[in-house]
Amino acid sequence: MSEPIDSRAAAEAADRADPLTGVRERFRLPAGLVYLDGNSLGALPAHVPAAVADAVERQWGTDLISSWNGNGWWTLPTRVGDRIGALVGAAPGQVMCGESTSIQLFQALTALARMQTGRTTLITDGANFPTDQYLAESVATLLGLRLVRSTPANLTEVLGDDTAVVSFSAVDYRTGELWDAASITDAVHAAGALMLWDLSHAAGALPVALDELGADAAVGCSYKYLNGGPGAPAWIYLPTRHQDAALPITGWHGHADPFALEERYRPADGIERARIGTPPVLGMLALEAALDVWDGVDMQLVRAKSLALTDLIIAFADRHLARFGVTAVTPHEQHRRGSQVALRMPAAYEVTQALVARNVVGDFRAPDLLRLGCTPLYLMFAEVWDALQVLHLVLASGAYNDPAYARDATAAVT
Amino acid sequence: MSEPIDSRAAAEAADRADPLTGVRERFRLPAGLVYLDGNSLGALPAHVPAAVADAVERQWGTDLISSWNGNGWWTLPTRVGDRIGALVGAAPGQVMCGESTSIQLFQALTALARMQTGRTTLITDGANFPTDQYLAESVATLLGLRLVRSTPANLTEVLGDDTAVVSFSAVDYRTGELWDAASITDAVHAAGALMLWDLSHAAGALPVALDELGADAAVGCSYKYLNGGPGAPAWIYLPTRHQDAALPITGWHGHADPFALEERYRPADGIERARIGTPPVLGMLALEAALDVWDGVDMQLVRAKSLALTDLIIAFADRHLARFGVTAVTPHEQHRRGSQVALRMPAAYEVTQALVARNVVGDFRAPDLLRLGCTPLYLMFAEVWDALQVLHLVLASGAYNDPAYARDATAAVT
Repeated sequence: MSEPIDSRAAAEAADRADPLTGVRERFRLPAGLVYLDGNSLGALPAHVPAAVADAVERQWGTDLISSWNGNGWWTLPTRVGDRIGALVGAAPGQVMCGESTSIQLFQALTALARMQTGRTTLITDGANFPTDQYLAESVATLLGLRLVRSTPANLTEVLGDDTAVVSFSAVDYRTGELWDAASITDAVHAAGALMLWDLSHAAGALPVALDELGADAAVGCSYKYLNGGPGAPAWIYLPTRHQDAALPITGWHGHADPFALEERYRPADGIERARIGTPPVLGMLALEAALDVWDGVDMQLVRAKSLALTDLIIAFADRHLARFGVTAVTPHEQHRRGSQVALRMPAAYEVTQALVARNVVGDFRAPDLLRLGCTPLYLMFAEVWDALQVLHLVLASGAYNDPAYARDATAAVT
Repeated sequence: MSEPIDSRAAAEAADRADPLTGVRERFRLPAGLVYLDGNSLGALPAHVPAAVADAVERQWGTDLISSWNGNGWWTLPTRVGDRIGALVGAAPGQVMCGESTSIQLFQALTALARMQTGRTTLITDGANFPTDQYLAESVATLLGLRLVRSTPANLTEVLGDDTAVVSFSAVDYRTGELWDAASITDAVHAAGALMLWDLSHAAGALPVALDELGADAAVGCSYKYLNGGPGAPAWIYLPTRHQDAALPITGWHGHADPFALEERYRPADGIERARIGTPPVLGMLALEAALDVWDGVDMQLVRAKSLALTDLIIAFADRHLARFGVTAVTPHEQHRRGSQVALRMPAAYEVTQALVARNVVGDFRAPDLLRLGCTPLYLMFAEVWDALQVLHLVLASGAYNDPAYARDATAAVT
């Protein structure tokens, strides 16, 4: 960690020196808002509205059913899959886009577990994102397996001859901790088990090398750092060597010859078998267009800026916010950190709301975390600096005690 | 069947007398095209582009993450579910919108089968849409059940004490045959089995009364007669009495308290538990807007017009096309007919292509069917008449023998 930024002038200098600064113009961001929630819903790429309008008005409205071939709807899931694959170190033909992350977790966990005859234990992270844990539960129930909750840090205590599959997220969605995917994958393989990575908080946030890791499967969403839009379709990575796996949900788009309309399911070769139902075309076309923002972007530069941004927040919290009971729970070591900073604090919910009211958007994660997501493609150092000033002011003034920011227990919070 | 229309003047008179004629203006249809494929992809409602632009530019682009509450994204799946429910005879709180039809089939089949302890047979229609059959296969494999293929017509031959679930489509996707859902459901119940209906070719095409039928579950797509757009999210109906069913795919949106971020899955009460992952927001907002075309539309009038349109095609085929080897395989009795006509003919693929080249869009279903879908909300009698004249010309002239219309075995056909 180089000397962290500790003034607005230093932040402005960092922006001037930022090799990614031009990429921000590829996004449409509301004026005056500091958006630190791209780890929940990525911002809108500026050219996506026109792409979606074309999808709706010309492709659907005018070309209608002929668009399946004429506008390439049929090949969309593999086309988008390959583009996501390029961002996570997967050679072409190994990533399929479609369905929701929960469905892809179900597919991947079930497929891998069934390849492991005789092994009856699934391991997931007890701090994993809820849907990862819930799906592991239901797969364990369906297949008659035992589910063990561990953490990536104490995996060796539970890993054994009976372990079928280990399912972790590469980045902890709450703390932002980045796990050592290479050594974990190696340890899992050494035990004869298979490794599934959930890359929802990693894809587009930092360099990932799935093929090099030797991951047995991976899944991820595309509405966070991939900026695909709300509820954008998820993706699954199945490396070539596992593509004969039996996937549990055998939809017609994964059939070897979908339009032969055969009675019996015959899986397609390769990654095509990971298709399930008719893809969500409009959302997937939005995602495909959104991926253009990555053109010419070097993921190593993304990582460097991400670390500088999170360094800035962590250092500021340590120096200026500790006296308000604020702790940066995100690891201070760069190699253990994803692209967000989680600040533990009293009244975290109310503070989050008070920030929103002042045009600084982070998010709250129960029970006591304020998450600040750093999306290097469009975030500027100066605006992060300004957001931290606002946070300081809210904490110092006690503004968050305003009853307007109190939690309404009946409201959904996202 | 009243005297069928057999002249353009009679078709024009039928249009003048059509109580639904004003509804066509709610759609944006390409000039000069006769679109007889609304049973595959419904046409674009005229106001949907503006709704989608608002979803992308304001809700996503400007309001960003706050849209989950502020723009009602969180309640979208039940809101849209209830609106679809109103079109298929389901009281509120029993239909959930989301995921793909294949996923909803998997959820419904698995949930119903697991309620039937001790019964080990699943029955599906051997002529059912492929994905219905493939999902029944995979559910049977996962749960260790026996899969029997029957047809709705010979159900009583296979229905027995061991039958857990019967899964049929209400309308045969190829022939357009409409089954007697009430008597089938009653027979299934009399045998102690549970009934799942796939309404993909029925919802929005004809009156459906799910609650009255006593169906145990239903699923459907929303991109055909519901005009939700390409790959629009599917839906599932689970009647109140079955809402404690254990669904196999336990995504976090179906949790009793999703933002408590609990380790263990606790299903939500009611239809909320049928949620799985983050919904495809853009596509679902398009669908929600598309459902506005049903405002004030009487489904009995839809049915009457649908029957008059299909009467017209069947009568024309019988009178004028039989000499070309064309047979209307769709039942001639109105009560046994959905909202499409399937014409069996030699060179059906080439004829379909020759029609498309002349701005008449139906579709081909292997091996020998031309399907003509009749969507009463926007189809006019006169244009159907004109399309039939084009079909007659293509057949009489042998124009379909043009090599340009020959099937390319490598191309996807949808």
